[in-house]
Amino acid sequence: MANTKKIGDLLLRSTHLEVDNIVVKLRALRVASLESRQRHNRPPKLPSRRILMGVAEGLSAALFPNRLGSSDLADEGVDHYVGHTLNITLRELMVQIQHELHYNSGSAVLSNEDRERSVAITQAFARRLPDIYTLLESDIVAAYEGDPAARNVDEVLVCYPGIMAITHYRLAHELHCLGVPLIARMVSEIAHSITGIEIHPGAQIAGSFFIDHGTGVVIGETAIIGQNVRVYQAVTLGAKRFPVDESGALVKGNLRHPIVEDDVVIYAGATILGRITIGRGSTIGGNVWLTRSVPPGSNITQAQMRHEMFEGGAGI
Amino acid sequence: MANTKKIGDLLLRSTHLEVDNIVVKLRALRVASLESRQRHNRPPKLPSRRILMGVAEGLSAALFPNRLGSSDLADEGVDHYVGHTLNITLRELMVQIQHELHYNSGSAVLSNEDRERSVAITQAFARRLPDIYTLLESDIVAAYEGDPAARNVDEVLVCYPGIMAITHYRLAHELHCLGVPLIARMVSEIAHSITGIEIHPGAQIAGSFFIDHGTGVVIGETAIIGQNVRVYQAVTLGAKRFPVDESGALVKGNLRHPIVEDDVVIYAGATILGRITIGRGSTIGGNVWLTRSVPPGSNITQAQMRHEMFEGGAGI
Amino acid sequence: MANTKKIGDLLLRSTHLEVDNIVVKLRALRVASLESRQRHNRPPKLPSRRILMGVAEGLSAALFPNRLGSSDLADEGVDHYVGHTLNITLRELMVQIQHELHYNSGSAVLSNEDRERSVAITQAFARRLPDIYTLLESDIVAAYEGDPAARNVDEVLVCYPGIMAITHYRLAHELHCLGVPLIARMVSEIAHSITGIEIHPGAQIAGSFFIDHGTGVVIGETAIIGQNVRVYQAVTLGAKRFPVDESGALVKGNLRHPIVEDDVVIYAGATILGRITIGRGSTIGGNVWLTRSVPPGSNITQAQMRHEMFEGGAGI
Amino acid sequence: MANTKKIGDLLLRSTHLEVDNIVVKLRALRVASLESRQRHNRPPKLPSRRILMGVAEGLSAALFPNRLGSSDLADEGVDHYVGHTLNITLRELMVQIQHELHYNSGSAVLSNEDRERSVAITQAFARRLPDIYTLLESDIVAAYEGDPAARNVDEVLVCYPGIMAITHYRLAHELHCLGVPLIARMVSEIAHSITGIEIHPGAQIAGSFFIDHGTGVVIGETAIIGQNVRVYQAVTLGAKRFPVDESGALVKGNLRHPIVEDDVVIYAGATILGRITIGRGSTIGGNVWLTRSVPPGSNITQAQMRHEMFEGGAGI
Amino acid sequence: MANTKKIGDLLLRSTHLEVDNIVVKLRALRVASLESRQRHNRPPKLPSRRILMGVAEGLSAALFPNRLGSSDLADEGVDHYVGHTLNITLRELMVQIQHELHYNSGSAVLSNEDRERSVAITQAFARRLPDIYTLLESDIVAAYEGDPAARNVDEVLVCYPGIMAITHYRLAHELHCLGVPLIARMVSEIAHSITGIEIHPGAQIAGSFFIDHGTGVVIGETAIIGQNVRVYQAVTLGAKRFPVDESGALVKGNLRHPIVEDDVVIYAGATILGRITIGRGSTIGGNVWLTRSVPPGSNITQAQMRHEMFEGGAGI
Amino acid sequence: MANTKKIGDLLLRSTHLEVDNIVVKLRALRVASLESRQRHNRPPKLPSRRILMGVAEGLSAALFPNRLGSSDLADEGVDHYVGHTLNITLRELMVQIQHELHYNSGSAVLSNEDRERSVAITQAFARRLPDIYTLLESDIVAAYEGDPAARNVDEVLVCYPGIMAITHYRLAHELHCLGVPLIARMVSEIAHSITGIEIHPGAQIAGSFFIDHGTGVVIGETAIIGQNVRVYQAVTLGAKRFPVDESGALVKGNLRHPIVEDDVVIYAGATILGRITIGRGSTIGGNVWLTRSVPPGSNITQAQMRHEMFEGGAGI
Repeated sequence: MANTKKIGDLLLRSTHLEVDNIVVKLRALRVASLESRQRHNRPPKLPSRRILMGVAEGLSAALFPNRLGSSDLADEGVDHYVGHTLNITLRELMVQIQHELHYNSGSAVLSNEDRERSVAITQAFARRLPDIYTLLESDIVAAYEGDPAARNVDEVLVCYPGIMAITHYRLAHELHCLGVPLIARMVSEIAHSITGIEIHPGAQIAGSFFIDHGTGVVIGETAIIGQNVRVYQAVTLGAKRFPVDESGALVKGNLRHPIVEDDVVIYAGATILGRITIGRGSTIGGNVWLTRSVPPGSNITQAQMRHEMFEGGAGI
Repeated sequence: MANTKKIGDLLLRSTHLEVDNIVVKLRALRVASLESRQRHNRPPKLPSRRILMGVAEGLSAALFPNRLGSSDLADEGVDHYVGHTLNITLRELMVQIQHELHYNSGSAVLSNEDRERSVAITQAFARRLPDIYTLLESDIVAAYEGDPAARNVDEVLVCYPGIMAITHYRLAHELHCLGVPLIARMVSEIAHSITGIEIHPGAQIAGSFFIDHGTGVVIGETAIIGQNVRVYQAVTLGAKRFPVDESGALVKGNLRHPIVEDDVVIYAGATILGRITIGRGSTIGGNVWLTRSVPPGSNITQAQMRHEMFEGGAGI
Repeated sequence: MANTKKIGDLLLRSTHLEVDNIVVKLRALRVASLESRQRHNRPPKLPSRRILMGVAEGLSAALFPNRLGSSDLADEGVDHYVGHTLNITLRELMVQIQHELHYNSGSAVLSNEDRERSVAITQAFARRLPDIYTLLESDIVAAYEGDPAARNVDEVLVCYPGIMAITHYRLAHELHCLGVPLIARMVSEIAHSITGIEIHPGAQIAGSFFIDHGTGVVIGETAIIGQNVRVYQAVTLGAKRFPVDESGALVKGNLRHPIVEDDVVIYAGATILGRITIGRGSTIGGNVWLTRSVPPGSNITQAQMRHEMFEGGAGI
Repeated sequence: MANTKKIGDLLLRSTHLEVDNIVVKLRALRVASLESRQRHNRPPKLPSRRILMGVAEGLSAALFPNRLGSSDLADEGVDHYVGHTLNITLRELMVQIQHELHYNSGSAVLSNEDRERSVAITQAFARRLPDIYTLLESDIVAAYEGDPAARNVDEVLVCYPGIMAITHYRLAHELHCLGVPLIARMVSEIAHSITGIEIHPGAQIAGSFFIDHGTGVVIGETAIIGQNVRVYQAVTLGAKRFPVDESGALVKGNLRHPIVEDDVVIYAGATILGRITIGRGSTIGGNVWLTRSVPPGSNITQAQMRHEMFEGGAGI
Repeated sequence: MANTKKIGDLLLRSTHLEVDNIVVKLRALRVASLESRQRHNRPPKLPSRRILMGVAEGLSAALFPNRLGSSDLADEGVDHYVGHTLNITLRELMVQIQHELHYNSGSAVLSNEDRERSVAITQAFARRLPDIYTLLESDIVAAYEGDPAARNVDEVLVCYPGIMAITHYRLAHELHCLGVPLIARMVSEIAHSITGIEIHPGAQIAGSFFIDHGTGVVIGETAIIGQNVRVYQAVTLGAKRFPVDESGALVKGNLRHPIVEDDVVIYAGATILGRITIGRGSTIGGNVWLTRSVPPGSNITQAQMRHEMFEGGAGI
Repeated sequence: MANTKKIGDLLLRSTHLEVDNIVVKLRALRVASLESRQRHNRPPKLPSRRILMGVAEGLSAALFPNRLGSSDLADEGVDHYVGHTLNITLRELMVQIQHELHYNSGSAVLSNEDRERSVAITQAFARRLPDIYTLLESDIVAAYEGDPAARNVDEVLVCYPGIMAITHYRLAHELHCLGVPLIARMVSEIAHSITGIEIHPGAQIAGSFFIDHGTGVVIGETAIIGQNVRVYQAVTLGAKRFPVDESGALVKGNLRHPIVEDDVVIYAGATILGRITIGRGSTIGGNVWLTRSVPPGSNITQAQMRHEMFEGGAGI
């Protein structure tokens, strides 16, 4: 009996977690943080990752209703499904665009100008969807043709993480160009977390692009990729490691990622850094570390690179 | 007042997104795409990734009800839980199998033969579950014994991404062998997106297999892995990069991935390509790039490989 | 008519999946497994990954309510939101802590001592939240300052997978230190599966830590990382590959991972193994393979390392 | 300590609920019940109330998308919303219709004839929706005109339980006429449970029908109600209490409920029993108990009825 | 084989439901309906019943957090729970209020005035919550004291449908008085559908009001009820049945329901109609039909009323 | 521009709802209320209506798995479904029982005795389920035989609100007898809110009981009902209206509701009050008001009763 009583007292006393104190301390820290950023009284309301996940899923389903949408859809209902999904999804996107514009403005309320802009961006984005579809079809065909294991194009669409990453990229790229780079980045990061493939929405990638396996691929903000390029897992198209300026500070926004011309193949683990050009039709071997341009038709292997590195030293 | 009116008109006008137009354009593109693939009037109905995620989760919970199933399950209820979960999950799987068979047949409706086959495949798969359990137990023990940080086998099961990847692989492999390779691939890709580990369902992997850390691992379709093999993150067991035939076209379906014999350890970042054999008990060092067979008991390091590469050039 | 009848019989017969048999077999295997581990009649009840996902999300939202919490939160409601979220989340965590303590005890019921301990751990963890906030703020600023593409600190918080990984790590590290390493590991693995970044909760990481891109990063249990360190994708801070003792068995729990001092930058794909020290202010180049200590201010490149390796051979 | 142990043992022992035993007993009872009904091996699969609730809600939303459908629907999206909702809802209904037809057939599998019939019924039902809309519009206007408290017709639609009951009735009545009386009854009962108004789907009710307040209203299977009838709460249009035949058994299926002609008003609590006719334009007072026909233009009050009853005795 | 083919064709043909046609027809009917009501191009957007259900539940939980809120709430967390719930719920309510004001205005967009008004109404409503709490406490005590079966006041709150109906009424009454009668009515109807008790939000009801059992109770818009009144199931406080004016049209908005003074008890099934007064402390027996005022302390039974009715005829 | 600014300021100012103030006031009222009831520091934790709804649904599904459970259940899976549902549902019920026992005890923590009792009650309840099944089967058959509109017993189970009310009653009655009257009442009220039928769990009702239509039925706590009784809508088996004792206070807990013997039929709207006996085989007509016992075989009509009432005055 006494024992039972003791347990009770203990529990009553011990389960007090002093949440009130923690709330007060966290508030103080938040306020200090806002003040240090001159955002006092303007706490940020950012676009929501959770809602953008739904938007990306909705847009994918509208583009490929039979394969990525509701699997028990009768043919008769496809257009209604696509239309309804777009109506819902585009309006959710518009609200997120308003959040980004509002956040950027730093003003207390959304201005009429920004509200108008959110509508214009959404309309422009919507009009781009058929072109995005066409590009994605070319990517899917490229995957089918480029992978000995692929049995048909439909399988490619539902199975290949590269296709999901490119789909998110192509949607995000339009948003990036239309002036909402934060949302674009968030859409792109959603695919990154699912596929392990990171493509910055600012990159420019032509049609028939294929990423196989894909985990660990990184494609930087100013990269340019031509038609019919194939890339394997863990390939980096990155910035060179010391992008220094005269004052020693990091240079921002310059053209710092590679240009990959048409019909190039880049094998797994290759690292290509800096504003160099990989000439049309070249092949870059696995694990190659490349920081200089190569002419069209090159066939670069690790062995060559190592030899070169050992011989001549490296600018890297 | 006039201002308010203006906002209103603006909003009314501007929120029209012309979804109807986009729906029409997307339909035209879909129809053209179907026609170019000779699938006119037979839009594909594919297995659903979302449902297969539930199937994979249900099967995992049925195999390990105490550890991966409902955590507030009383002992008395475990068998009912397992039985009920299997009843629901296997029937959902059977429907997905029907989708794959139907898709492959290209006919308008599911034939009786394919319906019978879907039942037979599901039954055969169900009967394999106890053997899968036994294999997975050996994998869990291997992980426990192979990782200095592992404190007990239960922790391994709930924490290690490698175990999740192998569980999905072992389920997917059975489905692959039973004739539903698309579903098998989708199940395998679910684990890929969660763990960053990609194992093709066609690979053959014996018991006591351990993948540590795992992000970036790729194991190809025709790879064969013996008993008690250990593999670290970013290891590739891939095809050699130029699988050419006499006409210059990609060769499909040939045996193009490595054979790894019993008791081999492959350290992080090693890339092993082509139909070569890693002899029993060998150790392959980190970042090694290997395209030739090695005899049993080999101990291959990067330094050796580079020396060799530098000396003799490379067949790669 | 006869045909219809036949289909019916077929379906009735064929849809019997013999689940009962499988349930019995799985039970026998489970019992055997428990017995082999001396856990007969004590099937493990482990913390739930699904619930810990909610806990990690709730704690993140409580720390950054405007940016990661509910996006339609009015300012007036922030403290109530934070307080309510903590009340719910911390109590869910406390239950999971009880599961881990109970599991470890091996006894049939949770002892009073373990119940008391679960409360004390939760209280101690809660009191650490403001300090965790301060550390995370320093990490966010570091990301903003370290990435040319980052436009503001808020974007960093919602977009960068590295920040998510560090947030989970910092929460998990406290739990690890407070005596619930399994929960700590599970929280850390949640971030691993989302970001491809694996940080063992036992690692010690000072403030202003930045991981860019991040996929494939592995940081081991006994690693120590100083202030203001920057790390890129696919970097490994691992154990050397042959941690042997005199009897040939794996050594457990020794200090086997690198020490990285303040202000170090480690580029993509670098692999740093063993209890070595990277001196303050050093730069480790991309893809470098490093198994020996380097003094402060070192600038290590692949070319150097290969030269060294070729010249002197390698202990690795 | 000993105490703690005791609690543990107790809990382990006591939480065994012998569910296995109960499952076995319930199975025996179910089997016996099926056998007594000659349904051995044919356990009933009935339409699902939960799914029919969704169907009824979906159909209501398709009929009145602005008022009962999604409240944040842009005008542009209404047709897609209606179309998509109908596509989904009608197919769900079709499956439920197959369950009812299959149940009635008593055969092991759904025959081709019944599958064809399910499609035909669904098509016929769908074609009736515009007429149902027109009837419901007349009901809504009648409610608006008949209730001094109603401010506009839109309010009537979203607030008045009578409108919900009539909507379900009008949908259910079509289903009843098309040969699926069980589903019709279930749809009708859904409204009964929400509104307290029970209208048998077999009743025939013309347009401009208004039920005010409504709780306790019962309208029987063979009742016939003309245009522009108004009914208040707790009104019964029932069968007379002794529907006997010569052998003393309950007579089934005969015409046993009242005929109410156009423009009749029936006040709260009135009970009208048997195959009698309430002539056009009559008013039946509150709580009146009526078992004989009354001519057009009658004004029946409780006082009259009681006088009559007291004077002449009662056939009732 | 041929048979299978036939089934397929049949299904393809027959499952076409011509939804497009129905959508077109329903649109034509909707447009015609809007035009007949002069609402062309202004389809109504009304408050949402589903959201108001959440609002009513949230407000109930905020008022009685221990008993109606989350049952696993620690004491420490109650205020945060109440605060958070109010923050969320009141803002949802504010949006619904904007819908009602916008609907009433008939203008294309919500005016600034109406937006301001929505805020003011929400604020005023929020300030009334403590008084509503006090009234509800008096109602709960009255129920406890008035029902021989009630064991304690907490049971009354969670079990008695009358308490739920009164809670909704008291919330709805404030909203009615603050100028949003449609939302008020919808909140009241939510309770009506759950309890079978209909109380018009316009009614004025003092404290310590108790409704026992309750199904079928109807209390009209202009009814006034004093302190400490008790009412049983199926009681109507209604309008007299012929509220005529000189022109023969229905009179709208006049004072047409009873005044019930303090300390009155009205037994089950009693019907009290018209602007009459039931004097303080009276008792009205079961099933009594009353259309004239009665002085304080009256004890009215059915027998009396019938005698009177029979003797004197009836004005009813 | 100025206008936009004004809107912003307005919104910022006006959307402050002063929730903090309201939280403080509500707390003060709650504390005062607890103190007035001597429950200071012991705020009540009551069973949850929402969870009990799930429990009631789960138990119904376990009793009638084919008809009320999952409609896509294969025969093979029924026992696992029933077993799993019982395992989950009974344990949820056990927790709710602990809440009720804890609440009653008034002590700070649940005592071991009450925990033991909760287990014992749950076990005893579980063992009663087969008998409850048998009683419910008799009720279903009675409904089928008693309603000319019923086509088969399965329809009765899924359609008739009376069956749902009786199912809840029979479950609640066992719980009432086992010592958890609050939970019993809550289970019973769940059915009341869905069906409009109120049966106090304390009532004693033998088999083959049928309630037709049902809205408005009230059956009191001490009512006793024999075999094969039929009851229609709006029937009250209540307490007489003046249950006074010598001191003028309400008498609690006495036997105050009717005894209805076997084979009685009570038509709609009949009101039977007080501890009277309706003799075996009697018929009570619609709307009859009865407060005295009647012998077996009576046939009571309204006309008789009114005559009697008028002649002799009334004890009521």
